[in-house]
Amino acid sequence: MEKINDVLIVDPVKGEFVGDILIDGERIERVIPKDSNVHEYTAMPGFIDWHTHGCMRKDTMRLSSEELEEWEDFLYSQGVTTFLPTTVSAKKEDMIRVSKFIDEYIQKKRHTSVYGVHYEGPYINVKKKGAQNPNVIRIATVEEMKEVISPVVKLITMAPEIEGFYDVLPVLKKNGTVVSLGHMDADFEEMKCAFFHDVNRITHFPNAIKGLHHRELGGVGAGLYLDFKIEMIVDGIHLAPEFVDMVYRIKGADKITLITDSIDAAGLKDGKFNLGGLDVTVKNGKATLSDGTLAGSTLLFNRAVKNFKKFTNCSLKELTKVSSYNAARDLEIEDIARIKEGYKANIVLLDDELNVVRTYSNGEIVYEA
Amino acid sequence: MEKINDVLIVDPVKGEFVGDILIDGERIERVIPKDSNVHEYTAMPGFIDWHTHGCMRKDTMRLSSEELEEWEDFLYSQGVTTFLPTTVSAKKEDMIRVSKFIDEYIQKKRHTSVYGVHYEGPYINVKKKGAQNPNVIRIATVEEMKEVISPVVKLITMAPEIEGFYDVLPVLKKNGTVVSLGHMDADFEEMKCAFFHDVNRITHFPNAIKGLHHRELGGVGAGLYLDFKIEMIVDGIHLAPEFVDMVYRIKGADKITLITDSIDAAGLKDGKFNLGGLDVTVKNGKATLSDGTLAGSTLLFNRAVKNFKKFTNCSLKELTKVSSYNAARDLEIEDIARIKEGYKANIVLLDDELNVVRTYSNGEIVYEA
Repeated sequence: MEKINDVLIVDPVKGEFVGDILIDGERIERVIPKDSNVHEYTAMPGFIDWHTHGCMRKDTMRLSSEELEEWEDFLYSQGVTTFLPTTVSAKKEDMIRVSKFIDEYIQKKRHTSVYGVHYEGPYINVKKKGAQNPNVIRIATVEEMKEVISPVVKLITMAPEIEGFYDVLPVLKKNGTVVSLGHMDADFEEMKCAFFHDVNRITHFPNAIKGLHHRELGGVGAGLYLDFKIEMIVDGIHLAPEFVDMVYRIKGADKITLITDSIDAAGLKDGKFNLGGLDVTVKNGKATLSDGTLAGSTLLFNRAVKNFKKFTNCSLKELTKVSSYNAARDLEIEDIARIKEGYKANIVLLDDELNVVRTYSNGEIVYEA
Repeated sequence: MEKINDVLIVDPVKGEFVGDILIDGERIERVIPKDSNVHEYTAMPGFIDWHTHGCMRKDTMRLSSEELEEWEDFLYSQGVTTFLPTTVSAKKEDMIRVSKFIDEYIQKKRHTSVYGVHYEGPYINVKKKGAQNPNVIRIATVEEMKEVISPVVKLITMAPEIEGFYDVLPVLKKNGTVVSLGHMDADFEEMKCAFFHDVNRITHFPNAIKGLHHRELGGVGAGLYLDFKIEMIVDGIHLAPEFVDMVYRIKGADKITLITDSIDAAGLKDGKFNLGGLDVTVKNGKATLSDGTLAGSTLLFNRAVKNFKKFTNCSLKELTKVSSYNAARDLEIEDIARIKEGYKANIVLLDDELNVVRTYSNGEIVYEA
């Protein structure tokens, strides 16, 4: 029986209180509130990253089991206890290869923070390709979707205005894959239509999305105005700090999910890299294609958490929502992202400056600063 | 002693209640709440339009006293009991001529709904000229400002990034003229700078303003994010209804002021008109220059009030804020825009569909449907 004593417990539902956390095996056995404010560390649910292409030279598109294990280990240092390796737009064979590989990896391990795969593309709008390879971007068909999809594919980013979008929705629903809208030129009406078909999530808002205009609100207006849940890359590069704060004030912490959208260059020094066949240069942590297009980020999750707190001055309770709780609810995972009896003991201990001090995954200490 | 019996009184501070209104001379003598919900009409403070270039063939730039009187009378039918005839960008001589004319007109009349002048331009950014004549747009100088300004000039629309803006602020402040930001290409930092110099009002947001981008929020982002008070043209043409509703949800009714920005064509049938020397075509109520640029509106105030209610589903109390109370507070006029003992008896009676049934100005019935 492991015990975490005298920490400031931050639960996304119950809020903040000082207490002890008792862990039995993989689960939280008890949470014991105390009549005290004395604490050294803060305990939050382990972070979740639903959108990461890689880091430390690992890349979802070209991974060995050893590399994926190293990736997991590195993310524990960031407080991340659950994540989705994310593909870029790719050929059918490559998508199937990656998802099979991840599926087998998960099956083999007793515990892993890898929860499944996020397909970012290829069924997106080439007009808003960002750093996605235009040569493999294509329309969606029911036949192909049935081939590439499997239970390990938890999330897919698609453009709602591309041909086939509504045809494949039932296939994705049946498979339990959540659809997120992104890399799209959809106008407000097209966004509204998708929303009323229960597609209520947007990928890295508002990057690679049609901008706001007062007579045609676009995808940005739809994201702000309709009740969409949105991913945000809070690295201070993709979005101005004021923009992050504005969106936080408009939509509230309940609708925002932090992601890194990190590429293999994350966690490394500046240099030359490759993303889905495209050359990427990283300078001062900013990853771009040769034409200046942002090519994913070099953001690490712990930094995203610190930035969001700094940019918005949100409460710690809200911080647990954007860093884990909302993401878990998105994919309907019921037993993580709370510090509560019966939940998985995925816990991150943070110091006063929100640095990760220790990470628990399934009740085990997997990182210690 | 005039008495308005059994109306739904809507006060921007006290809210909605059924009662009687007693009027003595120019003022509200007493407001008597009743233990009843029975009422036929709704009583709101008389509407205020701080931004109107004209209507019914009248135009601020070329007015006779008779025409201005007719303009006043016509606006009573719209429930408007206070307004600022608004200039377009013009030569110094024309600005002085118009403001002198309006000043003399006000001096001569015992009661008038004309409160002063709004100078829209010419110290604006030619890049965002909209339907303003580029030939007279110019920088601001202290010398010229001292010549064109006088106590009758209550409001001036200027671009904060044009040369001379900060030089002339003290002149305007001393004169009691409120500065409103508009027809500008100011970026977020420039907007923030103006805001921290106590310039906290924006003209016809977000028309003729730099758009929102997630890395450079522009004037639109500044308007949404900072605590600016904003004018809006709610005709369903300048702004999509969803945009109006979105801004209402973001900023709240306390920060929004309805204006018409109407031109001489308002209240007339479609046809050819002239705005500050530029040819304007009105088709289906939409006024444009030959290149398609929107050239003011043909909106009437009563329609703006109905539209705002329809687009936002706001409360009647909020409707009094956007239609009169906020405007009065903008210019620090203390004795109008409330239905309360001691306030001026400027009152509009509306039916269930918000049609104007009767208008009181200074205690007198000035319009009856």
